[in-house]
Amino acid sequence: MTAPTAAYADRLDRVRGVMAERDVDVLLLSVGADLPWLTGYEAMPLERLTMLVAHRDGEATLVVPRLEAPRVVEQPGVFTIRRWDETSDPIAIVAELAGGVRTAAIGDTTWARFLLALQQAMPLTSFVRAVEVTGALRAQKDATEIEALRRAGAAADRVATALQAGDIALVGRTEAAVSAEISARLLAEGHHQVNFAIVAAGENAASPHHDASDRVIRSGEVVLCDFGGSLDGYCSDITRCVSLGEPSAQVRDAYDVLYSAQAAAVKAATIGTPCEEVDAAARSIIAGAGYGDQFIHRTGHGIGVEAHEDPYIVEGNELPLAAGHAFSIEPGIYVSGAFGLRLEDIVVATVDGPEPMNRVAHELAVLDA
Amino acid sequence: MTAPTAAYADRLDRVRGVMAERDVDVLLLSVGADLPWLTGYEAMPLERLTMLVAHRDGEATLVVPRLEAPRVVEQPGVFTIRRWDETSDPIAIVAELAGGVRTAAIGDTTWARFLLALQQAMPLTSFVRAVEVTGALRAQKDATEIEALRRAGAAADRVATALQAGDIALVGRTEAAVSAEISARLLAEGHHQVNFAIVAAGENAASPHHDASDRVIRSGEVVLCDFGGSLDGYCSDITRCVSLGEPSAQVRDAYDVLYSAQAAAVKAATIGTPCEEVDAAARSIIAGAGYGDQFIHRTGHGIGVEAHEDPYIVEGNELPLAAGHAFSIEPGIYVSGAFGLRLEDIVVATVDGPEPMNRVAHELAVLDA
Repeated sequence: MTAPTAAYADRLDRVRGVMAERDVDVLLLSVGADLPWLTGYEAMPLERLTMLVAHRDGEATLVVPRLEAPRVVEQPGVFTIRRWDETSDPIAIVAELAGGVRTAAIGDTTWARFLLALQQAMPLTSFVRAVEVTGALRAQKDATEIEALRRAGAAADRVATALQAGDIALVGRTEAAVSAEISARLLAEGHHQVNFAIVAAGENAASPHHDASDRVIRSGEVVLCDFGGSLDGYCSDITRCVSLGEPSAQVRDAYDVLYSAQAAAVKAATIGTPCEEVDAAARSIIAGAGYGDQFIHRTGHGIGVEAHEDPYIVEGNELPLAAGHAFSIEPGIYVSGAFGLRLEDIVVATVDGPEPMNRVAHELAVLDA
Repeated sequence: MTAPTAAYADRLDRVRGVMAERDVDVLLLSVGADLPWLTGYEAMPLERLTMLVAHRDGEATLVVPRLEAPRVVEQPGVFTIRRWDETSDPIAIVAELAGGVRTAAIGDTTWARFLLALQQAMPLTSFVRAVEVTGALRAQKDATEIEALRRAGAAADRVATALQAGDIALVGRTEAAVSAEISARLLAEGHHQVNFAIVAAGENAASPHHDASDRVIRSGEVVLCDFGGSLDGYCSDITRCVSLGEPSAQVRDAYDVLYSAQAAAVKAATIGTPCEEVDAAARSIIAGAGYGDQFIHRTGHGIGVEAHEDPYIVEGNELPLAAGHAFSIEPGIYVSGAFGLRLEDIVVATVDGPEPMNRVAHELAVLDA
């Protein structure tokens, strides 16, 4: 999503404010989410270096391969463009633009090869993580960003609705085939990129990050689908489970617990509540029902231009939720060798309380098998 | 693609040989292509660290988040698994496994945040790029890998055939809609992941890395389509252009030049020929026809488990081609404000001469407009 130039100028002002607070002289951003958030431009994850060199007190320059430069939408007053040719050295250009600064903050997902080269080219500079500068700012979404998350969530909801209605054939197909169909539907619903489409049947769902495989889906199983992508630069992420025929009493019992735990955590996600208390709201219900050892991950992660970002809904994170914080609430119950269940919405903390970006039914959908 | 355990054991042996030559004590691999090439396991590009710690003289250990561990296919004798929990510190685990070594080679695309943390946790260690260890080994594909590239190329060819036959509607649709259809077709043809699907109509094609946009494709235009993905872990990458109606004399002339240049570079790609001479084979023809300034990028890049890798077919690269080198041959002619043309195949250097992985027609397809 390209925001108005004024939005980028405003973000850069606030970034410079944090740089001043933290004694960071220059910000160096490459692949990853900070750069599009700050400039509207997403670097290609390739061997040709793209890097924004933004001084705390001075200019911001986007160093970009000449053949990718036409992709850049200029933002006058925010940054200028410095093109480099196939036989130039972009590291030397960045080092020259940065100058002999004391502290540089480098984008968290910048490739190690470029950090190593910059450390060699800038021996007097110490490097810190850019998340120290951008993390807290990016975590609090403004109204335009929340609207983008709503659109992405609604698009993912339409795919989930099709899944729950039985419009996506499951029995007799491989997990991989269903994953491909979900991916295609995410694109058809307006996502410009699919980030993942987990389809895990039966015992495979006990692995939370299971890769869709050639395993054929059978009658009587529960199928866990966790999928998301980017739409106008903002991410969706949703998990729903469907039962192919009446679920067993064990699955029914576990799902009821999960349903209550997820709803409780969403309800707990109010401004001022520490992230770890939101985690505890889900965890205490699951543990109270005897499934504590089967809930093997945190309750959620922040989301925005990046699929996972601050704030993390995890034990030990004392950060209180603030207006505009956007994050997943996705408890799970995993019974090794048998089944796995997870229920996930994206939620935004607002002054009116938690606002879910996903509104499709939360019950376990039971389809004819 | 999961190779037999013996293949990984063999690769690790050869990697340790290069580590000995180059005085590298430990290899640290995370996200990116080195890790699946060496272990069959691809790290998830997320904030939870996955890292292989492979000693030159000693063990190899895969440090992996507990909830992702079920994804790992064990390779007995190649590496052991060390799981870490949601509240553990994976950096401390890697530093402890690495020990106080003098030199560590770190995966090129490892996230900067992890390199910074490791540098702090391992103050006595100097870090170098893993490509120094793995690059030359990975560039020379074995028979199994070439077969995988053939399959990926054939799948991409089937999509290109549909494009040339007019089975993918173009006129009146947006570039983005066509890009989504090409992506879906790549998946339907067996790719498990789409890496890119550039669709650039008319003057948009003058930007080599144009993003498919909401611009509607019109009669009379040339449309450039450059797409590829991964199939069984190996990449495809192909570019074909179609003309919607009879092309102008200018387009026809430029395409004829491009056709000759591409064919000449493929023919030049024999074992022993320096990469830069392959580049020159295409470039001299294009320059000789007066389009030298319109060919603004190198002729090609290596390809394998990664979409771009060694060897690069570029001026200044004196590396002689060796058996098993796999790379793109993709000259282009870009006329700003008017049109862009590119013609690309993947080619493998073999003892029997250059073997193209793409065999779909190289002529400019002319469709009814």
